[in-house]
Amino acid sequence: MPFNERIEGLRAALAKLGAEAAVITSLPNVRYFCGFTGSNGALLVSGQSVTLFTDPRYTIQAGLEAAAQVVVAKGPLETAVEKKLGVYRRIAFENGRISFRSMVALQKAKGEWLALDDTCEKLRMVKSGAEQAAIRASVELNSAALEEAMRQFQVGMTETDLAAEIEYRMRRAGAEKAAFATIVAFGKRSALPHAHPGAAKISGRGLLLIDMGAFLNGYASDMTRMAHLGTVPAQTRKLFKAVHEAQLAAIDRVRAGVTTASVDAAARKVLEAHGYGKAFVHSTGHGLGLEIHELPRIGKKDKTRLEAGMAITIEPGAYLEGFGGVRIEDTVLVTTTGCEILTPTSKSLMVL
Amino acid sequence: MPFNERIEGLRAALAKLGAEAAVITSLPNVRYFCGFTGSNGALLVSGQSVTLFTDPRYTIQAGLEAAAQVVVAKGPLETAVEKKLGVYRRIAFENGRISFRSMVALQKAKGEWLALDDTCEKLRMVKSGAEQAAIRASVELNSAALEEAMRQFQVGMTETDLAAEIEYRMRRAGAEKAAFATIVAFGKRSALPHAHPGAAKISGRGLLLIDMGAFLNGYASDMTRMAHLGTVPAQTRKLFKAVHEAQLAAIDRVRAGVTTASVDAAARKVLEAHGYGKAFVHSTGHGLGLEIHELPRIGKKDKTRLEAGMAITIEPGAYLEGFGGVRIEDTVLVTTTGCEILTPTSKSLMVL
Repeated sequence: MPFNERIEGLRAALAKLGAEAAVITSLPNVRYFCGFTGSNGALLVSGQSVTLFTDPRYTIQAGLEAAAQVVVAKGPLETAVEKKLGVYRRIAFENGRISFRSMVALQKAKGEWLALDDTCEKLRMVKSGAEQAAIRASVELNSAALEEAMRQFQVGMTETDLAAEIEYRMRRAGAEKAAFATIVAFGKRSALPHAHPGAAKISGRGLLLIDMGAFLNGYASDMTRMAHLGTVPAQTRKLFKAVHEAQLAAIDRVRAGVTTASVDAAARKVLEAHGYGKAFVHSTGHGLGLEIHELPRIGKKDKTRLEAGMAITIEPGAYLEGFGGVRIEDTVLVTTTGCEILTPTSKSLMVL
Repeated sequence: MPFNERIEGLRAALAKLGAEAAVITSLPNVRYFCGFTGSNGALLVSGQSVTLFTDPRYTIQAGLEAAAQVVVAKGPLETAVEKKLGVYRRIAFENGRISFRSMVALQKAKGEWLALDDTCEKLRMVKSGAEQAAIRASVELNSAALEEAMRQFQVGMTETDLAAEIEYRMRRAGAEKAAFATIVAFGKRSALPHAHPGAAKISGRGLLLIDMGAFLNGYASDMTRMAHLGTVPAQTRKLFKAVHEAQLAAIDRVRAGVTTASVDAAARKVLEAHGYGKAFVHSTGHGLGLEIHELPRIGKKDKTRLEAGMAITIEPGAYLEGFGGVRIEDTVLVTTTGCEILTPTSKSLMVL
């Protein structure tokens, strides 16, 4: 019973915090602790009970999915939850997830309110065997989708067309949806680290950046690969080589016990040595699971120590305005001795 | 200059509230007021200035898009915003959108904080001519995508396959993405008002519910249509007829000056008369625009008066557990004399 174990983990954290109950309002956490996948839900967890609050659209679905008692509320969920809080004096809440307004509604219950901060997200960092298998399957699906989509590639396609092709292949392979809006950025636009695909045609000469992920059975994958249309200029080769080296250096650093900051530093050091320190404008990676961005963060200032069973991305990049950008990203699983690179796709620059 | 007008609208609302400045933290509102489309941004609007805060990933994009001064912050945006707040005594904030934790960070600035509630969302309810055109184009794309996807329909496809086909057709037609996870629910599963498509094959006999929407140039569309596989049983015909009548009755009620509750009541009355009152478990519709769900709500208790230029959905439904469900949904534009139904797709039950 995975939900029992997870609830026990949460109860242990609540005991440490001195809370008698917790109100969980973010959907990924609601799903993690009880299995409910609807778009409107709140979970009340006490020492004795687990209660899911949802609305009438989800009466049937909640009954099928949730490892919890179900309360179907007709108005705002906060109001329904608040009415059940009278018996608790110290109540934990998701301060980083709940809106200020919803919290005002909850606080009509006169308990002492304790901030959970990242308590739930930390409980989710180390993945169970079943979760690791789910992430692995999502990563494999994602790589297969890229391969199939690239078979359909034709010079003159728009960025949007290629993104459509990629997401279609994900879906036909069984994904629920893309884990985020697929990025396909050609030429100078590859220098925008999070470009939306547009109507620009992929033709002529230039870098092609593809950042894509899928949700399969609720679990995310994430990968960035680079292609180049036409003969590769020396400057592009240099840029690609630097990012590639940085990515390998960061992966090489991954191991249970190491801080995430040191993984970030490994990538950053290589890019600095190549003169691209200022062109690396984001952090090296992030955890993923039920959400595409989870803890731990793999950034300059993040001191989390990696643990076996964490699933993280390693994705350094360098972006030169007016020229183009390169990012290479794998999903990896932290082990006691290093990591397993889940992403099976070659990292080579695909020359189209 | 649409952003100037919008900012002036916001400033007028701030003046009423007695606020000298507002911190806008929700992305759709940031986009509405300054045009920035990145995934991390906050806007500080005062009587004199409009300042966008974002992170280094978006330096280039913010410069291209935002009708605002741009501050690129290296840490949390709240911290960067908070440092600029010292000169204001009364500051408005998005209480319904900002997290409790982010608000704690902002409140380090010692002003008096005033809740915006739905101020920004209300400013967005009536769409400009350009916005109406954008919604119309999104709706037309969405209908074309359904038509093309249904040409690919084959008995034995899974729900997921058909959803993939639909989203692919949207994307190939130029949509940025689906406006929400496309719902394809067959047979008994059509009784789950917000079912995720699954691996179930669409074969045999039963209702097929398709709820789909696209984002095109940032603007949403939304449509639900029903099909049936095999001979249609009498009970299904009865159910379909009731929902169809309810939808027409609600549309018939739409007109500038009418309350949204009365539009909801028009649909509800018809379904009650057919004995499906309890099977209609959600409200009749919602506004849409830069988000798929916007104000006004078209529900039992919503007293907003419709105004010309509002874009709303009309989507009553009835769901019979263990049997199936029917929902019919159009996107319509409120006019002074009634409404324009934007959705061009026939509402008839498609018999497959």
